[in-house]
Amino acid sequence: MVSMFDEGLERREANHVSLTPVDFVARAAQVYGDRLAIVYGDLRRTWEETYERAVRLASALEQTGVGRGDTVAVLLPNIPAMVEVHYGVPMLGAVLNTLNTRLDASSLVFMLRHGEAKVFVVDSEFSDVARRASAELPELKVVCVSDVTPAELHRFPRAIDYEDLIASGDPKYMWSPPTDEWEAIALNYTSGTTGDPKGVVYHHRGAYLNAISNILEWDMAKHAIYLWTLPMFHCNGWCFPWTIAARAGVNVCLRRFDAKMVYDLIREENVTHYCGAPIVQGALANAPEEWRKGITHRVSTMVAGAAPSPTVIARMEEIGFDLTHVYGLTEVYGPAAVCARQERWATFSQQEIAQLNARQGVRYHLQRSVSVMDPDTLAPVANDGETVGEIMFRGNICMKGYLKNEYATEDAFRGGWFHTGDLGVMMPDGYIQIKDRSKDIIISGGENISSIEIEDTLYRHPAVEVAAVVAMPDEKWGEVPCAFLELKDGANVSVDELVAHCRLFLASFKLPKSIRFGVLPKTSTGKIQKGTLRTMLKQELGRADG
Amino acid sequence: MVSMFDEGLERREANHVSLTPVDFVARAAQVYGDRLAIVYGDLRRTWEETYERAVRLASALEQTGVGRGDTVAVLLPNIPAMVEVHYGVPMLGAVLNTLNTRLDASSLVFMLRHGEAKVFVVDSEFSDVARRASAELPELKVVCVSDVTPAELHRFPRAIDYEDLIASGDPKYMWSPPTDEWEAIALNYTSGTTGDPKGVVYHHRGAYLNAISNILEWDMAKHAIYLWTLPMFHCNGWCFPWTIAARAGVNVCLRRFDAKMVYDLIREENVTHYCGAPIVQGALANAPEEWRKGITHRVSTMVAGAAPSPTVIARMEEIGFDLTHVYGLTEVYGPAAVCARQERWATFSQQEIAQLNARQGVRYHLQRSVSVMDPDTLAPVANDGETVGEIMFRGNICMKGYLKNEYATEDAFRGGWFHTGDLGVMMPDGYIQIKDRSKDIIISGGENISSIEIEDTLYRHPAVEVAAVVAMPDEKWGEVPCAFLELKDGANVSVDELVAHCRLFLASFKLPKSIRFGVLPKTSTGKIQKGTLRTMLKQELGRADG
Repeated sequence: MVSMFDEGLERREANHVSLTPVDFVARAAQVYGDRLAIVYGDLRRTWEETYERAVRLASALEQTGVGRGDTVAVLLPNIPAMVEVHYGVPMLGAVLNTLNTRLDASSLVFMLRHGEAKVFVVDSEFSDVARRASAELPELKVVCVSDVTPAELHRFPRAIDYEDLIASGDPKYMWSPPTDEWEAIALNYTSGTTGDPKGVVYHHRGAYLNAISNILEWDMAKHAIYLWTLPMFHCNGWCFPWTIAARAGVNVCLRRFDAKMVYDLIREENVTHYCGAPIVQGALANAPEEWRKGITHRVSTMVAGAAPSPTVIARMEEIGFDLTHVYGLTEVYGPAAVCARQERWATFSQQEIAQLNARQGVRYHLQRSVSVMDPDTLAPVANDGETVGEIMFRGNICMKGYLKNEYATEDAFRGGWFHTGDLGVMMPDGYIQIKDRSKDIIISGGENISSIEIEDTLYRHPAVEVAAVVAMPDEKWGEVPCAFLELKDGANVSVDELVAHCRLFLASFKLPKSIRFGVLPKTSTGKIQKGTLRTMLKQELGRADG
Repeated sequence: MVSMFDEGLERREANHVSLTPVDFVARAAQVYGDRLAIVYGDLRRTWEETYERAVRLASALEQTGVGRGDTVAVLLPNIPAMVEVHYGVPMLGAVLNTLNTRLDASSLVFMLRHGEAKVFVVDSEFSDVARRASAELPELKVVCVSDVTPAELHRFPRAIDYEDLIASGDPKYMWSPPTDEWEAIALNYTSGTTGDPKGVVYHHRGAYLNAISNILEWDMAKHAIYLWTLPMFHCNGWCFPWTIAARAGVNVCLRRFDAKMVYDLIREENVTHYCGAPIVQGALANAPEEWRKGITHRVSTMVAGAAPSPTVIARMEEIGFDLTHVYGLTEVYGPAAVCARQERWATFSQQEIAQLNARQGVRYHLQRSVSVMDPDTLAPVANDGETVGEIMFRGNICMKGYLKNEYATEDAFRGGWFHTGDLGVMMPDGYIQIKDRSKDIIISGGENISSIEIEDTLYRHPAVEVAAVVAMPDEKWGEVPCAFLELKDGANVSVDELVAHCRLFLASFKLPKSIRFGVLPKTSTGKIQKGTLRTMLKQELGRADG
């Protein structure tokens, strides 16, 4: 039986339109067309100009043969063109595939082939690797952005210049939103522990809702000034290109991270918000005080990837930066949980607050659920802060699935939840806390040891700047913890002192059996490459054995 | 052909859930359970308590026989129960029908019958009229809220006490979001110029998106403190019950508007936001200065219904109130357009700014379009500020249609746009401006005269507090403008002076031919009842003729 509330009251053109974050760009241009959209060195572009360039880009790509559901891959740093592709490519109904600028040619070839890219937009800074990759894909149309080194263009005999492409587009091109908000908007490759990278497919609906969630978490006011310290190739910059459009804010572009330049931009452009990995936050927290001179306004910042150390949190507070700790994965559009701060924490010590803040937190505003569950039964674990389960998400801010990978998709979504692969606990106050990414657990003499727990302990030592703990194969115990440390400038500490420090907080079997000093290998987003450390250890032991 | 971005990547439980504003209540309870949700006199309830009461209400209603798609009608002022029904009724999948507390018994009977209400929640203040209405509907279950006068309960021999109902509900009841976000969440009756009231049906999707739009327009921070000066029975209080839940803010309830009490609450509860009709704003703007003593924080306010007069705008500015002018109708969930302020206006005179602010503006944040069009061809009018067309909306913040009224629904949505019936122009800067609600045009000697233009002129006179201009039948001209005025306290002005004042701004044929003084009839939301004025004039002329 049809309810009286449905009869004759179906969806129509007038009352049902697809959710798409591209509409935020259109509204910014309509309502705040004369306001700044992009700042990059001396370059200044308004929302009207930015919208027009995006429309031209969509039109030009269409003329090039790109259609709805086709892939446009890009290898770009955080420059204006990177913002523009986030607006122009989806206008056409095409799918944006942002590639990590640190990738080698063979990885690029894999992704360009797997994602079936029709067009490849490349910044001249990466022309070497891009040229090698595109040489293997003769059908691929290459577009080259040359805002730094125009002379590099000659490296691509078949490349179209990005500015020529834009100029060839029709500024009156009539773009249209997707017919279905479930259509793909972006493709983001993520590396698992084994096998080929997986192509995470985002839908317009999710991008729209997460872009708004970012605003809601930050209480972000209209015309916020956002500095691009987080790579846009990483989960589409956590959806922030669309967030900034929804706020008619300013995208302050930055080709590469540099702590001094960040402070200069905060001062000169009056930057109000930025995001960054712990390594970025650490670099800013430990920068010379004189770099901050003249900055009087408060700045909001988000951190993810690993819990910020209490020292960094305290330091940020001191210098007037409000730090929000978020948690997520590529599959959930970047941040999908947030360690929401509570007024009631105010009475706690700074150390306690830092520990509360280091948790992964609660579901993001427009995400439906985050939970810690038994991965087999899908029963939620007790909220006792001790029972370990797998962290799982459900809601509209979850990928469509993995491209051309039915097995991985079904596996990730089994039981109606997205399985993160991260192990954690549910605290009594409803906050989740990662105990360990599954692969980071060290099993020593049959006991599980959390590498994070040891790292947290090491971070409490005043000399430690960066700490990473991984499993080291051991004849007797199977595995033992091995710690890799970067010390603070000018700091000095012995292995014995560190072990004594750890003994204050850790059971004996959890103490690192080996401590090494040096510069840790990191990804372009500042994440420590524990895989590399593990491989190193294995090779070392191999040599020792052989 | 299925695109590779769709194959095996369909919607699933894990990545696609219905948008429903009830989820905001659940998140507020989960994340900010110990924070204040409702304040009413000495009563204080947290989000955890409010959520539990809403869950109990849903459970209890279900026990009473209410199911998905059933109607729950309420006749309540802005008291805590009114907030709770906005949360509990949709949890059950039932449809909330808020009735205007000024209605007479026969109108109530019509709506309760037409909407097929199963349950009728009534505040004891309205027990007389409710008793008369419910007497005609023997099947209707009546629930009585008695927070002021418990003794009134005896007036309903069959009434259940609201608190008993809540107590009978299961706090562990498992509510579930609608299977489809297109399901109805609310039913709001609106009176047209002719015929029976029409039942406007809201969907969960629209309520969700407009609740967020309110946050985006106001840059509303978490834990905002919202004062309920706007009746919740009016378009579900413009979706603000759900907005406040999404912000984990505070609903400061208020049984009836009283300017002194509003200032007391702003001071004592630290109110940050409220909405109100021009009459409410006028009363606050003109209140004695001593009532405002001790209020040092800025307050944000929204006004709709009619453009605020320059004097009121200026006065609000002076007393530290930031006024946002919004425009909408019941059919678009209240505000669906906003006169977005522009920084570039700062150089204009206060008078010019007031005029710019008096416009209806641009589309609301998550609404897709507002346009001024030829109602027949649906071609947009020139953006010259002169060509008159009909104001139309398109987007997700549009009703499902009119309940059991296919003709009106089809007519309202013809051509894929919602036709407001309001006539307006498109300004060169993309802002719409109402020239007249169609029925407000005065046709004099074949010339169209805008009653709003005359009202604006009258408002410029320092003695005028409220002005309403309607058509008066005239033998020679067909119609002529007749002005009804309320003067400011202690002000004095003659008809001749007012005509001389109008002559400064208006062509002769637009001058009011009759000017009358007195208290104007207003609706409960403070809108001037021009219909009553027109009827009065007709009766007067009838008597004169006969």
